[in-house]
Order: sequence, then structure tokens, then C-alpha cells
Amino acid sequence: MTLALAEAAKSTSDVVVVRKPFEIPGFLVSTAESGMRYRNRPDLALIFCENPLGAACAGVFTRNLFEAAPVRLCREHLKKSAGKVRAVLVNAGIANACTGMEGLVRARRTAQILAERLGIRETSVLVASTGVIGSHIKVESIEAALPRLLEGLSPNAWEKVARAIMTTDTRPKIAYAEATLKGSSIRLGGVAKGSGMIAPNMATMLAFVCTDISTEPEILQEILVRVTERTFNAITVDGDTSTNDTVILLASCHPKGITINRGENEKVRLFELLLEALCRDLAIQIIEDGEGATKCVEVRVLRAPTRDAAVTIAKTVAQSPLVKTAIYGGDANWGRVVAATGRAGVPFDPNRLSLYFDDLCVFREGTPIDDKDTEKKATEVFSRSRFSISIDLASGSEEATIWTCDLTHGYIDINAHYRT
Amino acid sequence: MTLALAEAAKSTSDVVVVRKPFEIPGFLVSTAESGMRYRNRPDLALIFCENPLGAACAGVFTRNLFEAAPVRLCREHLKKSAGKVRAVLVNAGIANACTGMEGLVRARRTAQILAERLGIRETSVLVASTGVIGSHIKVESIEAALPRLLEGLSPNAWEKVARAIMTTDTRPKIAYAEATLKGSSIRLGGVAKGSGMIAPNMATMLAFVCTDISTEPEILQEILVRVTERTFNAITVDGDTSTNDTVILLASCHPKGITINRGENEKVRLFELLLEALCRDLAIQIIEDGEGATKCVEVRVLRAPTRDAAVTIAKTVAQSPLVKTAIYGGDANWGRVVAATGRAGVPFDPNRLSLYFDDLCVFREGTPIDDKDTEKKATEVFSRSRFSISIDLASGSEEATIWTCDLTHGYIDINAHYRT
Repeated sequence: MTLALAEAAKSTSDVVVVRKPFEIPGFLVSTAESGMRYRNRPDLALIFCENPLGAACAGVFTRNLFEAAPVRLCREHLKKSAGKVRAVLVNAGIANACTGMEGLVRARRTAQILAERLGIRETSVLVASTGVIGSHIKVESIEAALPRLLEGLSPNAWEKVARAIMTTDTRPKIAYAEATLKGSSIRLGGVAKGSGMIAPNMATMLAFVCTDISTEPEILQEILVRVTERTFNAITVDGDTSTNDTVILLASCHPKGITINRGENEKVRLFELLLEALCRDLAIQIIEDGEGATKCVEVRVLRAPTRDAAVTIAKTVAQSPLVKTAIYGGDANWGRVVAATGRAGVPFDPNRLSLYFDDLCVFREGTPIDDKDTEKKATEVFSRSRFSISIDLASGSEEATIWTCDLTHGYIDINAHYRT
Repeated sequence: MTLALAEAAKSTSDVVVVRKPFEIPGFLVSTAESGMRYRNRPDLALIFCENPLGAACAGVFTRNLFEAAPVRLCREHLKKSAGKVRAVLVNAGIANACTGMEGLVRARRTAQILAERLGIRETSVLVASTGVIGSHIKVESIEAALPRLLEGLSPNAWEKVARAIMTTDTRPKIAYAEATLKGSSIRLGGVAKGSGMIAPNMATMLAFVCTDISTEPEILQEILVRVTERTFNAITVDGDTSTNDTVILLASCHPKGITINRGENEKVRLFELLLEALCRDLAIQIIEDGEGATKCVEVRVLRAPTRDAAVTIAKTVAQSPLVKTAIYGGDANWGRVVAATGRAGVPFDPNRLSLYFDDLCVFREGTPIDDKDTEKKATEVFSRSRFSISIDLASGSEEATIWTCDLTHGYIDINAHYRT
């Protein structure tokens, strides 16, 4: 993004997001093998902020009543540290969820050990876990791997981090964006994981986004909540919400980065634009790699009476097993989409509803476009690996977008025997 | 059911429901081939009430905003005829849904032609359709088949009816129950279809239940609404609600049957018990034959603060793709069940929740029962073709039960290419 573009950026589509390794001034990362569940692959990742005052940190977590132990510890530490974080330790394979008091003790012990090694405050350490529910993490295995984790710290190992946090993911998820404002740069880089238990309101989904700006944790938190609602909370693989969902945003407050103070709305706007574009790209990477997914589909609800109505209808369509299997089969079955909108529990006038597959209108004001040519073109759209389903209610001015994937044999294969 | 049992019947479990062909005094039925969509199989069914005053009729229909034409016509005719019905005509293969005004014209024309042939009032005819959305029924094909339909009328062709209304169903669904009260019998027989787009709030589900009692349509309607809530609205295959869902209850007011007047609460109670047992059996038959299903599972929520809370949690678990694939794989993954309860959007104390697979406790008051023996026994439960998942919230006295099936490769096969 050039200077001119940054100054002119009006929407997230003006932002160029690249899926490549990156460096963010002020952060070092590394990975290691603990051997807790997986064999012969790194399953631990460490993000370390060099700034002795800590990175300004914001976090958004699962709304599942069964919060995993690491989520509970993150909430506690963010409060106690006033949002100043030095390190984030992530493990893959064991979620440390539904593990009772013992689970919390183990999560806390892990943070303590890491804090001791790094010589930092325990409350400045966050932990995140993903994997099987109900199993305990092994603190001694993590402890044994810590020397290798610390030795390996480097500014450019983000792709390794993206790989180390994978569970049923088939590929790492990484994204980078930057902008220049009045000669100074904003750099934003992130990694994410998650391909099952993915639903609006967070999923078995972890995302860690780092930036070099200087700002207050409260400002970051406000921005992250808004952005998460439109990105990570706007995707669904299977409608299930995990116990471990975690999105963490860290700002290193590096001298190279710009400073954003409260009230500097222009800067906030630009940063939020960048962050939204980045998080959306990571969210879409999660959908593209959804368990068993072969297609990524954008479900848009337009001209709805309220934002809530738009979200509810979009989610209902995006989660419908009949719509998702039709996407898999390349069957442009508009009837299933229309039927899903009608059962969403949101009142609207069915006679005003129109439906588009990409730009093709297949249903106009309550009536199907019933000709062979439309059918043929619709089938062609459904053969694409990425397309949109747009539902125009013609009943207001609100809208919502949810990204989803198809429901496939691969999903069944992965989930029928996950633990065994 | 003997006299003594009938008098003593306290719950639906006292009622014996058999899955066999039956006769109900006052009703004749038949089937025929229209050739509209299927080849070499009957796709039309006619239920005819010999009583010239008509059967007392109650109906419960889809809550989908996109009501199919036959549903709209049924509502209209039930109103105009004050719940007095002579004939019900059903077709399988084409749903006549999302077909606009033309669809309603065709549904109405079908009823008119049948009424003319039978010499009855048009408004005493109901129609029901199931099959592909967006295609038109062919009135001329139905008209051509009518002579065969009328010639074939017989009191004992109910199994043929059950077969003629099938779409993706793999077997007919039929049930019969009777009771004797003070020397007189109550006979109840029903057929149903539906194996996809099945969800609470009715599904692509048709059910027709006939009885020989004499009563008022209003009394029947009140009973049917209550019973449907606990039976046909308590099952889910895929969470999708069809545009065509229809449950019709007809009472022939035959001299052989008993009379139930308003205020005769003992008789109402016994009839409702019988009807609930019958409808539950038909509903479970639908789940057992759910698209691709290999297992039928009862999800019970116990000691919930409210009935709504219990229903919401039971539905969330019963519709969770991760729970349903675990059932398919025989993976006693209690973590997924617990995670689904936690995301249901209903507040409760996670530390009070206990979970049972059949009678086996796998999670007690917020903590897993973590031993090899429990794991082994739980796996054995999940290998059964029918079992229960009971979630005890220990937070009240309300409960709810939802029946569900597993999510399998068969479901994907059936639905990825349904129209093609």
C-alpha cells in the first residue's frame, strides 16, 4: 500500500493483504516439539515482545459457557496486567478444556514456568490451547521444551508458528498488510488456525495478530471487538462454537511504528481498515481450509430491516446442511437457499425476496427465474471454488456477510473418528 | 391395549403401538402412478372419508415463511369448510413450493377436479405435496390418474399409501394403536414420510393420522397442536425446515367409535395419550430412516430452569454436526456434547452439569469421569443403533426430549446430488 493509497483508503478492499511470512518490529517468535500428543511435529509456539514495558494487548474469547482453562487464565492475566503482555505460549493437540480445577492449575503453572525463564511477570504471559477436549496438558513436557523454544526465538519464524498451532488444518494460515501514513508505516501480521468447530461467535479458532504501533490496550480492545464481529465471528464451518476460541492482538509500541492516541480518529480508522482486511483474510483462509471443504462461499444478505435480521438469515443459510451439501455437489439448488431464509425465524415479505448466485439472478421478487439458460449459468457458478450467494430482502438498508464452506465426505471422515 | 390397561393408562409408555397395516372405520384409501416425476412407482395417494358430513379435521403446518401452495390451500380449505374434510390427495416427487401464483392455481385446480369426480365440495378436499422445490405439478397427469385412484379405494391399502408418499425415504412409515374405554374402541392409524429437511418446527414431513372417534374439529386441533410439539416438532435430521410440512388428523365420526365432547377430560386425556404414542412412533420412524442415518439417538435435557431452555439445549446438541458425526463414528466424545450445551445461548452453571450416555455417567457436576473403564463402556453405548444422551443441568424441574440421527456419508451422497 503506497502513501497515496493509504491516505485515500476508503474501504477494506483498498488494502492489499499478502499471505506471506513477515516481520513485525518488536516481536520474536519460535516453535518446538513437546511430544504431548503429536509425534515428529512442532506443537508449541511462543510469541515474545521485546519491549520491556510489554505489548499493548487486546483479546476476544469464546462465548461458550464451558470456557477452557487457558481462556480463563487469559482473561485473568489481561485484567491483572492492564493489557500489557510480554509473551503468548500456544500448544496444539490438547485443548485443556473441561478439565476442571486441575486444568486451570496446569495452565497457570505453564505460564509461571515461562515467566520464570524469561524473567518477566507471570501475569504478562498468555496461554492458548487447541485440540482434544477433556485431556490434560503435560506441564513437564512443555517445561522440557522451553529451552529449545527460547533458543529458537527469531523475528521471522511466523510461518513455523502458523504450522505449529495447526490441528486438523491442512495448511498454515498467515497474512500481512501494511500502510504508510505521513511517512510512517503501520505493519500488521497474523497467523490463525482452525478448521472445525467453526461458527459465528468464535470457533476452535486461534488467531494472533501483531503490529508495531504504539497505543493503549483499551483503544486496541474497542477496535478488535468491532473487527472480530465482521471477520472471525462471520465465518462458519459447522455451526459449533469451541471452548477455546481466542483472538489476540498485540501492539509492540515500537519506535518504528506510528502512535495512535485516543481521539485520533483518522489514524484509528486507517488502522481498523487494515486490521479488518487482515482478519478477514485470515478468517477466509480458515473457511478455505474448513474440515473437508472444497469450496468457499460468501453468503450476503442485503437490504434487510435490521443488522440482526441480516446476520440471522445469513447464518441460517450458511449453516444449512442442505445448502452446504448442494454447494458440494455443484447443484445450484436455489430452493434450499430460499427455504433456509424462510425458516430463519426473521419476519420478512417472501414476495420481495430476490436471490443471486454471483451476479446471476435466479429468483426475483418471490418467483423463480424458470428457464434452461439460467439453470445452466447457475450450475456454472456452483462449479466455482469460490462464489457468492446474495439474498436481497428489499425491506431495509442493513446487510451482513457470512463466509461458509461446503459439507463433504471429507468432513465426515475427519469428524467421525477424530479421537480414535 | 385391553380394557383394564386403557382405564389405567397413565403415560404414553402404557400404549402399545404396532407398525402394521390397519383399517379405520369410515376411511378408504388408494394409490396410483401419475408419472409426473418418478417412473414405475405410485406417487399419488388418496384418503377418502365415507361420512357424507365429512371427517372432523385438524392440521398443523410448516412455519417456514415460504409456505408451499398445497399448505396455503389446506389452510384456506380448513377455514372455509370449518374443519370438515372428505378427501386428502397427496403427491410425491414435486413439492409445488416456490411456484408463485401458478403453483396455487394448480393446487386449487387439482382439488377442484377431485371434488367434481367425487361429487363433493371443493373446500372439503385437502392436498399435500413433497419433493423438489420450484417445479410445477402437472394437473393433467393427476387428472389422468384419478379414475385409477377412485377405482382402487379400499379400507386396507394404508401400506401402499405409506409407500406412495415416499421421496428419499427408504421404507414406509406406518403405525397403529387402539384402546378400549367402557366397552368401546378408539382406533388410531397413521402414515408418514420424510427423511431430509427434518427439524423441529416441522420438516419435509408429511403425516396423516385417522381415527374413528366422533368429535369437533376444534377439540382435535387443540390436541394435535399439543401432541405435535412433543413428537413431530421434537425430531431433527438436519435442522432444515421444509416449505411443505403437514400433519393432518382426521376423525371419521364413525358409529363404531366413541364420542368425545368438550369437557370430557378423561376421554380427551386417553385419546391424547394414544395420539402422542402413535405420533411419537411415526416421528421416530422418520429419524430411524433419516437421510443416511445409521443410528437413532434420544437427546434429553433434565432439570432445566425452563422448558424453553431445555428445548434449546436439546436442539443445539441434537443438531450439532460434531455430535452427529461422533455418533456416526461410534466415538463417545462427551466433550463435543458438553461444548454444544455451552454454546446453546442458554445461561446455566457449568459446574452443575452432568452427562449420561444411556445410564452411564461420563461427566459429573462439571468434571469428566476420567477412567478407562468409563471410556470403554461409553464406547459400547455409542456402538448401539439406539441410545440416549441425557444432560442433567440440576437447575430446575423442566425437561425436553429431541430425537436425532447421525450425520453420515450417506447423507452427503443423498443431498449433494438430489436434483441431478
